[in-house]
Amino acid sequence: MNRRIVLAARPNGLPEARHFRLEAMEVPSPRGGQVLLQTIYLSVDPYMRELMNEVPPVYAPSVGVGETMVGGTVSRVVASENPKFAVGNLVLANAGWQDYAISDGTDLMLLDDTDHPSYALGGLGMTGFTAYVGLLEIGRPQHGETVVVSAAAGAVGSMVGQIARIKGARVVGIAGGAQKCQHVVNEFGFDDCIDRHDPKFAQRLAQACPGGIDVYFENVGGAVFDAVLPLLNIGARVPVCGNIAHYNGAVGTAGVDRLPRVISTILQKRLRFQGLVILDHYGARFDVFRREMRQWLDEDLLKLREERVSGLENAPAALVRLLTGGSRGKVVVQISEEQLRTRQQH
Amino acid sequence: MNRRIVLAARPNGLPEARHFRLEAMEVPSPRGGQVLLQTIYLSVDPYMRELMNEVPPVYAPSVGVGETMVGGTVSRVVASENPKFAVGNLVLANAGWQDYAISDGTDLMLLDDTDHPSYALGGLGMTGFTAYVGLLEIGRPQHGETVVVSAAAGAVGSMVGQIARIKGARVVGIAGGAQKCQHVVNEFGFDDCIDRHDPKFAQRLAQACPGGIDVYFENVGGAVFDAVLPLLNIGARVPVCGNIAHYNGAVGTAGVDRLPRVISTILQKRLRFQGLVILDHYGARFDVFRREMRQWLDEDLLKLREERVSGLENAPAALVRLLTGGSRGKVVVQISEEQLRTRQQH
Repeated sequence: MNRRIVLAARPNGLPEARHFRLEAMEVPSPRGGQVLLQTIYLSVDPYMRELMNEVPPVYAPSVGVGETMVGGTVSRVVASENPKFAVGNLVLANAGWQDYAISDGTDLMLLDDTDHPSYALGGLGMTGFTAYVGLLEIGRPQHGETVVVSAAAGAVGSMVGQIARIKGARVVGIAGGAQKCQHVVNEFGFDDCIDRHDPKFAQRLAQACPGGIDVYFENVGGAVFDAVLPLLNIGARVPVCGNIAHYNGAVGTAGVDRLPRVISTILQKRLRFQGLVILDHYGARFDVFRREMRQWLDEDLLKLREERVSGLENAPAALVRLLTGGSRGKVVVQISEEQLRTRQQH
Repeated sequence: MNRRIVLAARPNGLPEARHFRLEAMEVPSPRGGQVLLQTIYLSVDPYMRELMNEVPPVYAPSVGVGETMVGGTVSRVVASENPKFAVGNLVLANAGWQDYAISDGTDLMLLDDTDHPSYALGGLGMTGFTAYVGLLEIGRPQHGETVVVSAAAGAVGSMVGQIARIKGARVVGIAGGAQKCQHVVNEFGFDDCIDRHDPKFAQRLAQACPGGIDVYFENVGGAVFDAVLPLLNIGARVPVCGNIAHYNGAVGTAGVDRLPRVISTILQKRLRFQGLVILDHYGARFDVFRREMRQWLDEDLLKLREERVSGLENAPAALVRLLTGGSRGKVVVQISEEQLRTRQQH
């Protein structure tokens, strides 16, 4: 049987168990040109919350009620009617929240088995590529500049800070909780990390950035953004990569329109805000990124941290944990036993 | 005597007569290295309102209460203790709202007499340079793209639209009132212009931009911005040059925080917002701009419109008229008779 998780109802704020439903159906059979994929790892990412809304984001359609939740996967080809893929091939796919999926092959990328396969979803995949493009192409930190990263313990944030350090910037993270902050400094090597739950958060952030902020990598929005804004230097760059504080309907100080102050600050400080949807950037640059990232990993200049959850049925909880800041590093759900499959093919 | 207009009190909203005071004092004498300037033309610009606030904008200090209002001028050297400047020289200066001013020469640029001297403040000066840099370096319109310009009848906006047309874009202006809109289309050659006072403004703007908006040149903020936002195409650029709706304390819909929607739109549509303060851009590029602009003027590809007010005492009313959208094109105040001075020197 193929188990899958469908969107059962649209959440208004944070998703709960009742918004998902586990279903079982027969495993489909591939027809001409198709392959049958078995999911090994499912990537869990903040954008998934946006796809649960009735009004879709611009970059992708919403998931319909009753439809399988979408998501990037590392999958194994278990049956193939497509000459480009053989049974046993490991591929990067978009199989979604389910055990098995059909693909016509056009959205698949062959992976080799030398890397830990789940890295293809994280540091060497969409997560790492987002950090790389957002920081280096939009943020463009110069040697000695100060880079501030929100959601610094998260999958993208932790990589942004490490890449910025490699490029010679001073890096200050922002994360929720003292323990997470310690982790960001000790494990990911940030110069400093400020706890956004600290009652003196804005003041502590200012102290940690005595020369102001040259690049702010925006993952969260909300009150964190409000504390960053007055610290931005003239000519600062703000890659807008996430807005997680608002995905669940949370807003800033009720009744205050913060926009005029932001627009006025953009003007006066000649700021550059630029949005990033990583889907735009695949192609030749993805190969360049993978080469450079692999070198950084080989040289031990950068650490990847992965939080692995076992079992498809635990995917909803993993997403909620990510959205509420409970996770660290890249979150993946292990859907099936990779080793077992690997052995079967030989 | 030297008449000057000082800031008498700080306005809260729109400036009124009581916020200015006309004073008279002796004409100062230049000492070693200095020149005495007589003001011929004073430039009237929206930024002047910002300098009247207690909290200064980032790009310049506020005018102190009791101090002379600042402003760019075309001035004549009437006495010189500086070997670089001779009596009779026409210069671009920052003499402010007064008949005479002292300068040490470092902020002066020699003008030749072949141009209409007030052009040095408008199309061939700061106004034109702002339009040029903001549109071409930040907006970067491509042939066939749609460029929308707010405050389209104003000094900067009217030039932005004309330059965008030269570059092959389709140009839609936004202005306050049907008459101004007609003027924008008939005199400045915009493809269309929408009246922001029209009750169906947002709908009419959408109809005028069937292919969406690729570049929005922001001069005003407020409700105009709200109508533009949903029409911006993926990858659109927004040079933020002015925020005039907010200079006087006007805000959008009270009690609604518009920021989350804007940040979310920046992300999803991969927009680029970038602030422009023209002071950053002088230097070699100013010469390039002047060469290109002069050629466009010579080839009749671009029209400059100037609204000239006579008499220093009328400068406050000219500023208020500009801030309330009453003026068209570049506003200058003629402070003294240019011809008289020109004759005297020969």
